[in-house]
Amino acid sequence: MLADPPPVSAVHQYEVFELTLEGPSTGNPFVDHTVTAAFDLGNRSVHVDGFYDGGTTYKLRFMPDNTGPWTYTATTSFGTQLKGAFNCLPARPGVHGPVRVVGSHHFAHADGSPYFPFGTTCYAWTHQGEALELQTLGSLKGSPFNKIRMCVFPKSYEYNRNEPVFYPFARPAGTPLTAPGNTARFDPAFWAHLELRIAQLQDLNIQADLILFHPYDRWGFASMSPEADERYLRYVVARLGAYANVWWSLANEFDLMKSKTTADFTRLLQTVQQADPYQHLRSIHYSRVMYDYASPSVTHASLQTAAFDKASEWLEAWRKPIVFDEVMYEGNLDRRWGNISGEEMTRRFWLGILAGCYVTHGETYFPPPHSVPEDVIWWAKGGVLRGTSPARIGFLRRLLDSIAPTGLETAHDPYYLNATGKSGILYYFDFHQPAEYEFPLGEATYRAELVDPWNMTVTPVSGTFTGKVRIPLTGNAYAAIIFRKSNQPG
Amino acid sequence: MLADPPPVSAVHQYEVFELTLEGPSTGNPFVDHTVTAAFDLGNRSVHVDGFYDGGTTYKLRFMPDNTGPWTYTATTSFGTQLKGAFNCLPARPGVHGPVRVVGSHHFAHADGSPYFPFGTTCYAWTHQGEALELQTLGSLKGSPFNKIRMCVFPKSYEYNRNEPVFYPFARPAGTPLTAPGNTARFDPAFWAHLELRIAQLQDLNIQADLILFHPYDRWGFASMSPEADERYLRYVVARLGAYANVWWSLANEFDLMKSKTTADFTRLLQTVQQADPYQHLRSIHYSRVMYDYASPSVTHASLQTAAFDKASEWLEAWRKPIVFDEVMYEGNLDRRWGNISGEEMTRRFWLGILAGCYVTHGETYFPPPHSVPEDVIWWAKGGVLRGTSPARIGFLRRLLDSIAPTGLETAHDPYYLNATGKSGILYYFDFHQPAEYEFPLGEATYRAELVDPWNMTVTPVSGTFTGKVRIPLTGNAYAAIIFRKSNQPG
Repeated sequence: MLADPPPVSAVHQYEVFELTLEGPSTGNPFVDHTVTAAFDLGNRSVHVDGFYDGGTTYKLRFMPDNTGPWTYTATTSFGTQLKGAFNCLPARPGVHGPVRVVGSHHFAHADGSPYFPFGTTCYAWTHQGEALELQTLGSLKGSPFNKIRMCVFPKSYEYNRNEPVFYPFARPAGTPLTAPGNTARFDPAFWAHLELRIAQLQDLNIQADLILFHPYDRWGFASMSPEADERYLRYVVARLGAYANVWWSLANEFDLMKSKTTADFTRLLQTVQQADPYQHLRSIHYSRVMYDYASPSVTHASLQTAAFDKASEWLEAWRKPIVFDEVMYEGNLDRRWGNISGEEMTRRFWLGILAGCYVTHGETYFPPPHSVPEDVIWWAKGGVLRGTSPARIGFLRRLLDSIAPTGLETAHDPYYLNATGKSGILYYFDFHQPAEYEFPLGEATYRAELVDPWNMTVTPVSGTFTGKVRIPLTGNAYAAIIFRKSNQPG
Repeated sequence: MLADPPPVSAVHQYEVFELTLEGPSTGNPFVDHTVTAAFDLGNRSVHVDGFYDGGTTYKLRFMPDNTGPWTYTATTSFGTQLKGAFNCLPARPGVHGPVRVVGSHHFAHADGSPYFPFGTTCYAWTHQGEALELQTLGSLKGSPFNKIRMCVFPKSYEYNRNEPVFYPFARPAGTPLTAPGNTARFDPAFWAHLELRIAQLQDLNIQADLILFHPYDRWGFASMSPEADERYLRYVVARLGAYANVWWSLANEFDLMKSKTTADFTRLLQTVQQADPYQHLRSIHYSRVMYDYASPSVTHASLQTAAFDKASEWLEAWRKPIVFDEVMYEGNLDRRWGNISGEEMTRRFWLGILAGCYVTHGETYFPPPHSVPEDVIWWAKGGVLRGTSPARIGFLRRLLDSIAPTGLETAHDPYYLNATGKSGILYYFDFHQPAEYEFPLGEATYRAELVDPWNMTVTPVSGTFTGKVRIPLTGNAYAAIIFRKSNQPG
C-alpha cells in the first residue's frame, strides 16, 4: 500500500525535510512499529529512522547535506511504503550546516565556514513556560553566544525546583510526581515543544548542545532501565537529528549519576554514534572523574576545570577540540562554582582561547530581593543576563572574528600567553603588566593594536612591525595586543 | 700572657657583647690564627669562634640569650688568654631576640613574643653607596616589612651592573674585575659596612635574611674552591652570628649555580649549622629544582612558587614553616617574574597567609624615563617603593596583628579559603563574590567585620554570631571577613 505523495518537493540544504505517514494507533506504536527510509543522491544513500508522533502519525526527518535531486524509499513495519523525490536547493544565506571538527582541534560548519564556539549555559530553560522561554530567546538574541548547554530532561536542583510544563513520557492518571511516567511512550507535546526551541535557536545561529542525561533529578529520568535509556536515545536521534544545530552531550556530570557506570555511558555514546546518520558532535561532561576523551566515542572534550595550563598537554594527547564547558559561573550565589566575578569570567575566556581551546559562559546572579527558590537565574532557567562578562565576551568574539575565525594555535613564547590565528597574532598578559616587551614576530609584517579587554577598546600603534620589535605597552594588567598581518612593508 | 680587661661590663639581652684582643698581623692572620671563647652562665657554656679584623685586632662577639652574670674564657693560637665577666641585663623595650620556629610551622622571637614575617627583597642594596643605602633604610622604615632578603656578595644581573663600593676579599693591585680577590684574606671594611647595615635593620626591627651564595656573579664568588667556601661561611658566622636579626639563606636559586651540586649545598648548610652557636634560622632558595625541605639542614622552606594550593600537603610533609619567598614581583619589567600587578601581589599575600604560610614581597618598577641599566629598582638596589601593594600588605599586617599575631592555621571550610588565629577566624573570597554565606562558626561567639583588602577598610557587622550563621556580604570579589572572638554572648 502506498501513501499519498508528500507535499514538499524542495528543501534547502541543511534544513529539515519531513515525511509524514499514516499508520496504526493501537497497542504501543512507539515500540510496536518502525519507520525507516533510505535517502539517495547519486550513488550516496543515507539511512534514517523515523518516529511515531501520536494519533495515526509517523514521521521521517532528513537533513540533506548536498544540493541536487534526492530520492527516497520509506519502509514501515505496518506495510506502508513510500517512494518520492525532492530537490535540495542551495543553503539559504546565513545557513552553514552542522558544526564539525576540523584539523585536530578546531571546529567549522559543514560548508567550510568557520565556527568559533562562544557558549553559555541554561540547563532547564525549555521547562519554564512560554513567557520566560521567549524572554530567554530574546536575551540570547542580544548576547554574544552561539552555543547553549541545555538539558532535555527537566532539572531538580537549587534554584530549579518547579515542575516542568511538559514531560518527556506519557503520564497515566495517578503517576506520582516522583516517577518518570511510561518510559515506553513518549509524549509528543514535549518533543514538539523542544523541537520548536531548537529551531528558534537555529534561527539565532545558536548551537543546541543537548544534555541527554543528568543527575539533578527527582522524577527517575536519571535511573531508567538500560532498555528505556536506549529507546529514549533512539527516539531523540530520530526526532532531533535532522536539526543542523544539534550537538549531543551524553550527560552532565556523568560521574554523579550513581545508577550508571562509565561503561554504561560509553555504550550509550556508541548507541548515539550508531543511530545518528549525521554524526553530530558528541561528548560527555564530568564533575570530578574525567572521561577518557581519547576515546573514539567522543568528538571533542567537554571539561569542568579551569586548568588552562594543561591544555597543550591534553590537545597533544587527545588530538581533539577542547571546550572548557564549566569554568565556574559569574554570579553571587554562596557556592564556589556560582560566584566568580565578571572580571574573572572574562579572564577565563581569554586564557582558554589563547590556549587554543574554547570556553563556555554561565551566570548565577540572583536578583534582589533574594527569594529562594523562586529566583530566576540564567544558568538554571534563563531569563535575563545580569553580569558584566557577556559584553566583554562579545568584544573578544568580534576581535577573534577579525583575526582568527577558524581558531587559535597556541604559540610558545616563553614569557606571555600568545597564539596565532589565520591573519594575526594575539598576546594576553593576564596579571602581568610589562611597560614594554620585545615581540618575536618573525618574517611577516604586522600592524599592531593595544587591546583593553575590560574597557573594550582597541588603540592602534603607529607603524608596521617585523622581526624582533620592542613596543611600549600600557603597563596595565589584563591587557592584550593584537598583531594583524599587513600587506604594506614596514 | 693576659690581655687588658675588656671595657664593657654589662650588655642587654640579645645584643652584641664584643671582646677585642691584640694579636699578630704578620703572615695571613685570617688563616694562621684562631680565637675562640667559652661563655658561661651557671652550668651553661656556649662556644664561640672569633675573627681577625685587620691590623693587630682580633674580635670575639657573643649574643647572650639569658640575663645574669656571664663569665668567659677566650683562648688564642698566639698565646693570649682572656678571662672576664659581664652582666647581662634584661632586654631593652622592643628587643625580643632572634626568631625561632615554634610549633610545627610558625615563628616567634626567642622571648616568646610573636613574629609574623612580612618580607621584602632588595638583593644588592648594601652595595650601592651611602646615599642610596640610607634612602633604602628610610623607605624600609616607612614600610610594613619586617624581613629583607639580601645578598652578602655583590650581584651582577639585569638592572644591577654597577661595581660594588666594597669587596668581601682583599684585592691586591692588579686584581682583574672578574676575579674574587684573595679569598683567604677578608676585607674588614666590607664586613664593617655590612654589620652596620644589619644593625640598622635591627633598629628597624627588620630581620636580615642573608643570602650567602647566589648565581648572579661576574667576580667568581659563585665558583670559589670548597676550602674558600667553608672559610667564608665560618668567617660570616663568627662576625655576624651575634646579631639577633640574622637569618641564613644558604643560596638564592641554588640550582642555577653550576659549580656546586645539591650535595655541596647540603654540606655547606651543615657547616653553618655546626658553626652557629645561636642556631639562627636556616634555609635555601631554589629556582626550578626544589630543595628537600624535609632535610634537617634547614629550619624552614624558602619557596619560589605561587602554588599556594599545595601548602597544606607541604606543611604536612615537612612539618616546618613555609615562606613563599618569591611569588614574582610587583612591577613593569618585561620579564614574567618582574611585572605582576599590585592587586595580584596583594592577592598572593592573602592566599599564602590564609594557607598558614608566609609571603615575601618584591618590587620591580623602573622609574620613568626608562634608562637601562642605571635604573634603580627596589628588588635590585633598594631606593624608593613605587608600588601599590606595600600599603595593602601593611593593612593586612595590622589586621593579623589584631587576630593572629602568632600565625594562622588553615581551616578546611570546603568552600572558601579560611584560617583561624589566636583570637579569630579570617575568610578570604579571592575571585569569588558571594552575596551571602552561611559561616560554620562553631561554639564560640564572635563579632564580625567586612574587610576590603584593596581599599583597606573594615566595616563592622552589627550583632554577635555563633554556630551556623548566614551573613550578607558585599558581593565584591577579593573581599574578606574577620570574626573576632567576643566575650559578650549573642
